[in-house]
Amino acid sequence: MAKEKKTPRPKAETPKGFRDYFGAQVTQRTQMLRQIAEVYHRYGFDPLETSGVETVEALGKFLPDVDRPNEGVFAWEEDSDWLALRYDLTAPLARVAAQYRNDLPSPYRRYAMGPVWRNEKPGPGRFRQFYQCDADTVGAPSVAADAEICAMLSDTLEAVGIKRGDYVIRVNNRKVLNGVLEVAGLAGDDKEAARGIVLRAIDKLDRLGVDGVRALLGEGRKDESGDFTKGAGLDDQQAEVILRFFDWETSRKNLVRQGINASLMLENDDWQSWLNAGISADPQLRKGLDDPENADELRNRMAIFHLADLVRDSSIGMEGVRELKEIADLLSAQGYGPDRIVIDPSVVRGLGYYTGPVYEAELTFEVTDEKGNVRNFGSVAGGGRYDDLVKRFTGQEVPATGVSIGVDRLLAALHATGRLDTKDVGPVVVTVMDKARMADYQTMVAELRNAGVRAEVYLGNPKNFGNQLKYADKRNSPIAIIAGGDEFEKGIVQIKDLILGAQMAENATLEEWKDRPSQIEVARTDLVAEVQKMLAGQQESQS
Amino acid sequence: MAKEKKTPRPKAETPKGFRDYFGAQVTQRTQMLRQIAEVYHRYGFDPLETSGVETVEALGKFLPDVDRPNEGVFAWEEDSDWLALRYDLTAPLARVAAQYRNDLPSPYRRYAMGPVWRNEKPGPGRFRQFYQCDADTVGAPSVAADAEICAMLSDTLEAVGIKRGDYVIRVNNRKVLNGVLEVAGLAGDDKEAARGIVLRAIDKLDRLGVDGVRALLGEGRKDESGDFTKGAGLDDQQAEVILRFFDWETSRKNLVRQGINASLMLENDDWQSWLNAGISADPQLRKGLDDPENADELRNRMAIFHLADLVRDSSIGMEGVRELKEIADLLSAQGYGPDRIVIDPSVVRGLGYYTGPVYEAELTFEVTDEKGNVRNFGSVAGGGRYDDLVKRFTGQEVPATGVSIGVDRLLAALHATGRLDTKDVGPVVVTVMDKARMADYQTMVAELRNAGVRAEVYLGNPKNFGNQLKYADKRNSPIAIIAGGDEFEKGIVQIKDLILGAQMAENATLEEWKDRPSQIEVARTDLVAEVQKMLAGQQESQS
Repeated sequence: MAKEKKTPRPKAETPKGFRDYFGAQVTQRTQMLRQIAEVYHRYGFDPLETSGVETVEALGKFLPDVDRPNEGVFAWEEDSDWLALRYDLTAPLARVAAQYRNDLPSPYRRYAMGPVWRNEKPGPGRFRQFYQCDADTVGAPSVAADAEICAMLSDTLEAVGIKRGDYVIRVNNRKVLNGVLEVAGLAGDDKEAARGIVLRAIDKLDRLGVDGVRALLGEGRKDESGDFTKGAGLDDQQAEVILRFFDWETSRKNLVRQGINASLMLENDDWQSWLNAGISADPQLRKGLDDPENADELRNRMAIFHLADLVRDSSIGMEGVRELKEIADLLSAQGYGPDRIVIDPSVVRGLGYYTGPVYEAELTFEVTDEKGNVRNFGSVAGGGRYDDLVKRFTGQEVPATGVSIGVDRLLAALHATGRLDTKDVGPVVVTVMDKARMADYQTMVAELRNAGVRAEVYLGNPKNFGNQLKYADKRNSPIAIIAGGDEFEKGIVQIKDLILGAQMAENATLEEWKDRPSQIEVARTDLVAEVQKMLAGQQESQS
Repeated sequence: MAKEKKTPRPKAETPKGFRDYFGAQVTQRTQMLRQIAEVYHRYGFDPLETSGVETVEALGKFLPDVDRPNEGVFAWEEDSDWLALRYDLTAPLARVAAQYRNDLPSPYRRYAMGPVWRNEKPGPGRFRQFYQCDADTVGAPSVAADAEICAMLSDTLEAVGIKRGDYVIRVNNRKVLNGVLEVAGLAGDDKEAARGIVLRAIDKLDRLGVDGVRALLGEGRKDESGDFTKGAGLDDQQAEVILRFFDWETSRKNLVRQGINASLMLENDDWQSWLNAGISADPQLRKGLDDPENADELRNRMAIFHLADLVRDSSIGMEGVRELKEIADLLSAQGYGPDRIVIDPSVVRGLGYYTGPVYEAELTFEVTDEKGNVRNFGSVAGGGRYDDLVKRFTGQEVPATGVSIGVDRLLAALHATGRLDTKDVGPVVVTVMDKARMADYQTMVAELRNAGVRAEVYLGNPKNFGNQLKYADKRNSPIAIIAGGDEFEKGIVQIKDLILGAQMAENATLEEWKDRPSQIEVARTDLVAEVQKMLAGQQESQS
């Protein structure tokens, strides 16, 4: 018999599209998730942790064909069941809400944090496993639930270190879009194709600008390469209605020119009289419209006026406007003004997916991207209301609303603002001058640890002392402890300030270093106290 | 064309063998992982988080056959690569240690926490996804690294709330077993089959007892059903050597009867003279052997004597004994005596897998199991030295040692000792008497939250007030806030003590409740202060 072939060595490679996280990358995310969980918890949300694996049947949307499931999820067949890795945290919530519907409180506020997996083609910055951090309220039909999530999102961003003024939460409503489509003559089953083209067109507002979108709403658009994309075939007036909804900047300017029609009919008495009084009776609003720079606190009132004017002939549209006004009122009563949360008709993202209010958190400070362009940091969280969550399973409609925070993007934002160090402070390293004294060295680290100091003994081959200091450098260690035969005999240890040492090496000529020696000799019994003193001094000189 | 068939509703079910974790189950695990991470971090270990997915090639051991991989892992084919969910945290560490070997510090101390997946048949208490929490040192050949991990494991157990005396960390060594096998005449390539039978037999010591194992070491064993298992075919003397190693209880008694041969030849001078002096010259040890109840601090010395005596003719065996003595000495110098960490030849688990020291943390308090039997809680963590970690990838041998904590078992242990509540305290619930005043209710919860009080407004249908109180009960809420038109008019709110209310409902006749009303009326402006006062009172009366 031939001898078995030797198996070739396996490749040591992270699978394509996946990542490894080291040191501070892990601790910083863990800390951020803890800060987020604290806010969610204070708002009455309970944690839920489902497993990474679901049946393909329960996940929905992705169903297996003959021998391989559709793109989008990682799936496999297991004892005649198709199983898959979850692609978000909402699908498992839907399954849980249906499965435990008799045991869970209703409304059910839950948060969930963990990895999700997407079977996408790997590309730069696109990963196949990433963290999501969601909070959802299931079973609450009132927009008070949406307002609550917006307030919570605001508190959350500040809790993790995003300063007020550096973010804004924008709120829009799918029902208003439906009203706009209705007003534009795009209601009805026969217009579904046109509505699809319109939704895809406005999704490109950022990239193509108003003129590009206008072309796509009309006959179509030829791009720079000469390729032609067929449009929705709207006439100018129809396209204008759509654009007045999304192009909020232009609409705001037009508001000043045209004034607002005050004859709107609304159910809510207070608001009706407010609207009836009209823009002329509201000098503050007048002022805001004239001078948008000073109009921050009037932003939400202006947007609601504008939307009501736009969809006043559509009952679904006006329902959406009323919901937006209720959200703005609830938030304003709790002190969340337009400096944090704004009604913004230009929010496009998620409008196709959600059924009511949608919200998006955007970081407004500027960063320089890979191509050297300065731009706003952009979106870090989004969500909205989706009322068919549990229906797939039970046939019963259950209202739900929720938000998902992009954990990795939010971490990147904190790095961009300089609020997170990229490097952890390493441990104090006790070097090994004499292998036979290992018990003495381990006793030193035990004393340091018991005093709360991160510390370790060098456990590599101690023969080359230079290697031990190189190791300490690689660990980003603040201090090295040195003790050989002489020191033990005299009852002393050497404490080496590695941070000062590195600074001195860089600026060897500076006078100021002269009276701060980078290495001191102390009594063995003072080891812990002297190390703590040096660490405190290092922290002071770095802050 | 026929109309498309309606898809049947999907089943809302957790996939077989998987679990959902709710509320306190999640927060308690999160808190425990944080406490563990703090200890690991203080010891100089750095976090590493790899993704849940690895290539089957890198995971090793499990290779795909024609169109489906072996049992044990969940795997699938993806663009001609086989991918799989990791089955532990050690295999990904091996891949990382090889992949980043030029960038990582050496030695590399890392910890990792996260879910792992096993493709096992689901059964009671056996899950296909569970948490592991590992710490490993890669690139440190010295047993000082093993000693460090044992000390860290001890600190970790105490940090999560296991009291000293309620646990013990047992240490054994694969090299001593190799020495024992050699002494028993089982060395050499031709004895591999017999060695396998011996290893499997001693793994059953707990279940079969000494006599059962003795039969398996000899000709074989007939079990109660009459089935015969062929034995290793050892003669009585050979079997006796094996049993003297594992049956430490009997060996300890025999030690007293026989005394210890003091003529052992060892390299280390100190130890040699100590051994040479023998048991008769060590009155403390004599006393310990005579009276095992008082011999706690002598346990390790006794075990080492015993092992040295057993394997003195095997050089690999004596190397193992020396390693155990070094570990015991290092730990004892740092104050970790046999009340926490013991040398224990009866540790079997892991001996087949590891190459040097093995260690196991056992909780020694008693619990009543599902069948009503009182037994020790048992093992919650284990580990050891394995020196072929990176070799699979690079061909280079890299020494490594590490421990894995069974997170779910450790949590179960804390519950068994009554150290964890099964229920979270719920939020203060602000009830809704008047839907139009939602902004007022949300302002109340905002005030409470800003004062750090977990609070929420009821967001279900407010029509039936009883449902609101049932909801608060289901949430385990300590307090309900009630305010309707009357209260708003008078500028007051009602604060209802739900915990006192529940106690009163259970013990309605008790006199003591009389002067503690379960519902109080306070000024709206005092809401936050009064809620805090009531919460503090509840905590006091519960502790």
